[in-house]
Amino acid sequence: MVSPAEIREKFRAGLRVPTSGYCPGWTQANLLCLPKEDAYDFLLFAQRNPKSCPVLDVTEPGETSASIFAGDLRTDLPAYRVYRDGELVDERVEVADLWRDDLVSFLIGCSFTFEAALLDAGVPVRHIDAGSNVPMYRTNRECRPAGSLSGPLVVSMRPIPADLVATAVRVTSRYPAVHGAPVHIGSPGLLGIDDLGNPDFGDAVEVRPGEIPVFWACGVTPQAAVMRSRPSFAIGHAPGHMAITDVRDSTFQVP
Amino acid sequence: MVSPAEIREKFRAGLRVPTSGYCPGWTQANLLCLPKEDAYDFLLFAQRNPKSCPVLDVTEPGETSASIFAGDLRTDLPAYRVYRDGELVDERVEVADLWRDDLVSFLIGCSFTFEAALLDAGVPVRHIDAGSNVPMYRTNRECRPAGSLSGPLVVSMRPIPADLVATAVRVTSRYPAVHGAPVHIGSPGLLGIDDLGNPDFGDAVEVRPGEIPVFWACGVTPQAAVMRSRPSFAIGHAPGHMAITDVRDSTFQVP
Repeated sequence: MVSPAEIREKFRAGLRVPTSGYCPGWTQANLLCLPKEDAYDFLLFAQRNPKSCPVLDVTEPGETSASIFAGDLRTDLPAYRVYRDGELVDERVEVADLWRDDLVSFLIGCSFTFEAALLDAGVPVRHIDAGSNVPMYRTNRECRPAGSLSGPLVVSMRPIPADLVATAVRVTSRYPAVHGAPVHIGSPGLLGIDDLGNPDFGDAVEVRPGEIPVFWACGVTPQAAVMRSRPSFAIGHAPGHMAITDVRDSTFQVP
Repeated sequence: MVSPAEIREKFRAGLRVPTSGYCPGWTQANLLCLPKEDAYDFLLFAQRNPKSCPVLDVTEPGETSASIFAGDLRTDLPAYRVYRDGELVDERVEVADLWRDDLVSFLIGCSFTFEAALLDAGVPVRHIDAGSNVPMYRTNRECRPAGSLSGPLVVSMRPIPADLVATAVRVTSRYPAVHGAPVHIGSPGLLGIDDLGNPDFGDAVEVRPGEIPVFWACGVTPQAAVMRSRPSFAIGHAPGHMAITDVRDSTFQVP
């Protein structure tokens, strides 16, 4: 089994893949780096939207590693997105040359973390079987704003056989720190999603007869807030290309 | 059954009692009000110490009610403590005349919330039977600091019959937002508590033969950090004299 440190070394060397299915048993995290002047608004936004923004760790300004991530936050994710005034201006495999001493990094729980538990419970995960990225969608649900930050809830979707939906709810609800129970089951139209085949982030997956689309809150929500709210500068992970931390997923399991 | 709004009216009129056992089924909360300039450090302190400082709600600066508390934060708790430069300078039943437009109020989960569930499970709660306040102790465990804030973990203690300790763990672990599972069971000396009969806050209770002292993280921890770290101004609830909110305890229950 490849360790978090070993896979981070491959990412640092340039491997660029979605991380779903990598290092099962280890917690994966979304990344958002903001100037210190925007950090309070974001931490409050996260407190007010805990389903989509469960904060696992926050660095001091300028720090390049975190208490749950011994690697280098600037190089050890497979891919990054760079925003200026809310515009996506670049996607790249490292951001060391863009780093600033005033950047506070937030690590936010990712639903890839509970996929090992889903597989253990006999619930198939389509995008892992397909070797693709999870499909993610902007919804018509507004997050609760905080200071200068507002934006829509973003969700990830997994098609689940109807007789396993309850199992999927039960298993994932034990992991509230990595998005927990689904926010919506079935009826994508009610979330304002017109076409499951055309996700806003990641790759489309097949929804087979007898399968129900199940939606979990997604840690791309902070980046949707950046796009809406336009802080001067931000760095995020590329959707699906997560920080693989040094913390076991069992740490975040509740009874 | 008295509703949260009705009991808050009595507190506003001057009733001054510890709130353990009041309005069972409704969430109780610790209060800390800090100037906006200290709010980021405290929100980060809470994120880094989630067992003792589970944040349930944060107001905008100057707001006198909160999304989970429809009453007036300045008058509707039974008693308050006022700090200047970290010194406790007053304890009083309302703080309306001390209010400032830059005060951010944090509502933090309180273990009184899960006492109804303990009683339902057949676990006796000594300080409720005794009609006294819960005993609380400073420990030798340091919280993880954040910016200007540091301080010791404060715990509450309930003596539990040995054959019910596992039940108490199981029941309370379902409420992580109101301190969740105990942080320590037995052996007060290991927490640096020399004399259970001499609590730092609240009232001593009898520990009978066959009972084990069980310790939960306590929402007085933020006030211990204020005393250590000396922000210019702070208001807290008087220990044990909580904000009774408009949210059912089931809202914070996990599977």
